[in-house]
Amino acid sequence: MRYTQYFVPTMREIPSEAETISHRLMMRAGMIRKVTSGIYTYLPLGLKVIRKVEDIVRAEMNRAGAIELLMPAVQPGELWMESGRWQFYGKELLRFHDRHNRDYCFGPTHEEIITDIARRELHSHKQLPVNFYQIQTKFRDEIRPRFGLMRGREFIMKDAYSFDVNDAGAEESYRKMYDAYNRIFKRCGLEFCGVEADSGAIGGSFSHEFMVLAQTGEDEIVRCSSCGYAANLERAEVANSTAGCDPKHGSMPAAEKVFTPAIKTIEELSSFMKAPYETILKTIVLLADGKPVAALVRGDHDVNMAKLKTLLGAGILELADQETVEKTTGAPVGFAGPVGLTIKIIADHSVRNMSDMITGGNEKDTHLKNVSLRDFEVTEFADIRIITPRDICPKCGSSIDFIRGIEVGHIFKLGTKYSESMKANFLNEKGEEQPFVMGCYGIGIGRTVAAAIEQHNDENGIIWPMPVAPFQVTILPLQVHQAEVMETAEKLYRELIDKGVEVLLDDRDERAGVKFNDADLLGVPIRLTIGSRGVKEGVAELKMRWEQVSQNISVGQATSIICDKIREFNDQAK
Amino acid sequence: MRYTQYFVPTMREIPSEAETISHRLMMRAGMIRKVTSGIYTYLPLGLKVIRKVEDIVRAEMNRAGAIELLMPAVQPGELWMESGRWQFYGKELLRFHDRHNRDYCFGPTHEEIITDIARRELHSHKQLPVNFYQIQTKFRDEIRPRFGLMRGREFIMKDAYSFDVNDAGAEESYRKMYDAYNRIFKRCGLEFCGVEADSGAIGGSFSHEFMVLAQTGEDEIVRCSSCGYAANLERAEVANSTAGCDPKHGSMPAAEKVFTPAIKTIEELSSFMKAPYETILKTIVLLADGKPVAALVRGDHDVNMAKLKTLLGAGILELADQETVEKTTGAPVGFAGPVGLTIKIIADHSVRNMSDMITGGNEKDTHLKNVSLRDFEVTEFADIRIITPRDICPKCGSSIDFIRGIEVGHIFKLGTKYSESMKANFLNEKGEEQPFVMGCYGIGIGRTVAAAIEQHNDENGIIWPMPVAPFQVTILPLQVHQAEVMETAEKLYRELIDKGVEVLLDDRDERAGVKFNDADLLGVPIRLTIGSRGVKEGVAELKMRWEQVSQNISVGQATSIICDKIREFNDQAK
Repeated sequence: MRYTQYFVPTMREIPSEAETISHRLMMRAGMIRKVTSGIYTYLPLGLKVIRKVEDIVRAEMNRAGAIELLMPAVQPGELWMESGRWQFYGKELLRFHDRHNRDYCFGPTHEEIITDIARRELHSHKQLPVNFYQIQTKFRDEIRPRFGLMRGREFIMKDAYSFDVNDAGAEESYRKMYDAYNRIFKRCGLEFCGVEADSGAIGGSFSHEFMVLAQTGEDEIVRCSSCGYAANLERAEVANSTAGCDPKHGSMPAAEKVFTPAIKTIEELSSFMKAPYETILKTIVLLADGKPVAALVRGDHDVNMAKLKTLLGAGILELADQETVEKTTGAPVGFAGPVGLTIKIIADHSVRNMSDMITGGNEKDTHLKNVSLRDFEVTEFADIRIITPRDICPKCGSSIDFIRGIEVGHIFKLGTKYSESMKANFLNEKGEEQPFVMGCYGIGIGRTVAAAIEQHNDENGIIWPMPVAPFQVTILPLQVHQAEVMETAEKLYRELIDKGVEVLLDDRDERAGVKFNDADLLGVPIRLTIGSRGVKEGVAELKMRWEQVSQNISVGQATSIICDKIREFNDQAK
Repeated sequence: MRYTQYFVPTMREIPSEAETISHRLMMRAGMIRKVTSGIYTYLPLGLKVIRKVEDIVRAEMNRAGAIELLMPAVQPGELWMESGRWQFYGKELLRFHDRHNRDYCFGPTHEEIITDIARRELHSHKQLPVNFYQIQTKFRDEIRPRFGLMRGREFIMKDAYSFDVNDAGAEESYRKMYDAYNRIFKRCGLEFCGVEADSGAIGGSFSHEFMVLAQTGEDEIVRCSSCGYAANLERAEVANSTAGCDPKHGSMPAAEKVFTPAIKTIEELSSFMKAPYETILKTIVLLADGKPVAALVRGDHDVNMAKLKTLLGAGILELADQETVEKTTGAPVGFAGPVGLTIKIIADHSVRNMSDMITGGNEKDTHLKNVSLRDFEVTEFADIRIITPRDICPKCGSSIDFIRGIEVGHIFKLGTKYSESMKANFLNEKGEEQPFVMGCYGIGIGRTVAAAIEQHNDENGIIWPMPVAPFQVTILPLQVHQAEVMETAEKLYRELIDKGVEVLLDDRDERAGVKFNDADLLGVPIRLTIGSRGVKEGVAELKMRWEQVSQNISVGQATSIICDKIREFNDQAK
């Protein structure tokens, strides 16, 4: 492609609305333009990278035996009413009426449509397993769209849905997708990590998120450097290292009230009592589907609401309101403690190992000291806290790291949530009706592009991994009015194109500085500069975008040297 | 692709809701499924053909220098208010509000968005000309969606928009698209015709429609077999063969009233007066932007509202209501005539050649005979009628044909309609602000697929043109449990795939009849049947979908014979 025949409106200034590196660079490199909040046009260069990622995704989905189809963006409300999501999906679901005043929505996801197809077209176990996927524009009416393609409203997504005869089959389909996702992100040239995740509102039995690692990522991930265990912070199990340990109840003096005027936080309490956080017991009163329950964790720990919710089997779990706290504990918020509480008490495993605790006194301005497990009854000990960097790997006991990432893919084992609510059944081998066991698998295409930039950039611009680069090579003739320079540039341009290389020839009549700056901003991996001096000597300057140094190579060998480099970097991503 | 690993839910019965051949065959061949009125899922086979057409379109758009980008489906209402279309676009524009109650629509077309991009990113004449295109899902809330993909609500379209410095440039951009469209439909293997068309509500100076020829087409086209002139029936010019001819007023007796009780139609009048249609003058009273005007055409002709509207420069042209007719003519509907009329009278050129006319009498139950041009004053003679098969080519005078077609593409020279209303200007060579001169160019991707089927089918199913066939070859092993049969089938399957051929291997354990029927229904151009008897003799049966006869070919040569055939048929479409 010739730069003058293309459309790459680069910007020198940093767009004020862009808060993240990828958003800024995609704007500056002329990849996207905002139409309105959370809605973008993909300019030619942006679309080119989107398509590269799509092609890798498509190839790996096909290799895994998934079958591509394309469902509509506009979905009838009736199907969502059948699944029950019409009521539960909030304002993120963009709803509207057609001219006949019927309910529709712009699909943010397609479980309803695919389940409807399955119940109409898949009748027998002989047709299973099957996995359908599509790559499609979706819409989610985010309350606060931001970070460009990272959290847009209209976005391109690959979504896949598997149908199996039973759990074992569904798990096999899930595993295939897990492997395919690993291949996909590896082939995109990204450093990433598949982590255990909470399955969240979408329901189902288990799920993994695929995170592209980047300091700027929104998500925190726990990873074991030794065994490779990785999990979303919210999901990470905590090793039950204190199981079976016996705290020294016997030798302890009796619990004793302490006057703690207006001291409510752990920080205030620790400082007032001159006691480390680990000796303080936090009592959090919650409402699980409206019923009060107390959660106990150590002062230096935090309750993991997701774990607790799963443990309690609660539909809604929330902090109790002031009134409930007062009614339950007899004291204002800040003075709750387990001693004398009559509601269900769930304690974290680590509490078992505590003695000589400081707890709330269930009385205004009062705490208790010298509390031990003999003083209250725990309904159940469980893993209900958020992991900390001081914890060890729950799988192998090694030390763990906290790293940051950007979620680019998410796979779910859905089970029969949709097939049951929508009565999507097949006939099993015995001729009996049975609901499909489903899985669903998403990849944010635009998000993957943004994440690639968050992971690969420097102060001058983007540094594309070879497999998703919009062009592999950019040729910069510095003096476009000098015949020998342009002839050499054109010759190499044609040679490379003939070899199937994607080349951007910067044939603009611009200063060298402008060309170098734009080349760095666009982030094409290989830069070949043709200058009048070099041409006389038969050399061109080769520079990799991520290296500081360049080297002179002979014009005659340039094509074969470059083809070798491209192969090398593409192979690394395999 | 192996049939058992794919998803092609064929249907034996004819779906009741499908009225057209293509709709029926796309349903029966498992290409599409209806989700709700006018909204379809493209099943794998349907999507495959859609992508084939898209790829051809993309290649030819790129070759013509157009640049691909992708604009959002959801468009802010403000831009449509700026262009003025928010008010004028009726219920076909699917409008909705986001969570903040702002106006949006699901884009049926993208003039507003692209003009907004142009005014923000194109500043200088040096950046012109430029032509942007996208292939995208659009929505038009048709009042009566029907015929499957032919008139759906959600549909895939290629739309392109060119920006030029002046009319000459815009016409050159238009010509490039005209040529590209010719190449596209030729490469799709279709018989088609580019016809002059009315530019309709979208405005602008001129336009062409691309019609795929099919008996079942909705549109009527006039085509000259000699010079190649072709036009939409609505648009076709009529040769002014009577220009300058002098009707014999002098020798005529005076006009005379005839009592014609309750005789209102031309048919009744012709029979009552025993006069041929050609001697009767039709007087149609119309309202042009609310002002009455009379149109005169011969009894065997019809008024062409589009031509008349353009001639009058009217925004709205409609038949006058009863009240207006009575007020204007003094008589009830059915008895209007030009004699004594005081409103503007536009007569078709052919009226100049009439004498001894029968006309309405502007009085109840009354007509006039012996009327001639001396008896009334025509404001203007013009071409205001619809062409008939008895007319001659307006360009060369040869005879013309009426044929039917399906509109698959439409190109418009828009002029400055959008750039002026949206203030989209660039700086010309003199540094002055000037609006872009625009063109827009659409292709219905799904419609092209449907039209290909309307043109290529028989009673057994689809007959794909090679370039858009979902698979070029289908291999039918008749006895899947016989090792030699399956080995031969698998060997040929692999050989052909290695040659880059797309093959559907029907590895189902089904009767030969089922396989033959499905193969005919799916319409894959080349069928290779492997039977146990043939295998023993080292032969397979080769049959082209559109031929009645098959031939035995040697298994060893099958791959090269088939590759030659594919090349041959692809070359024909070049």
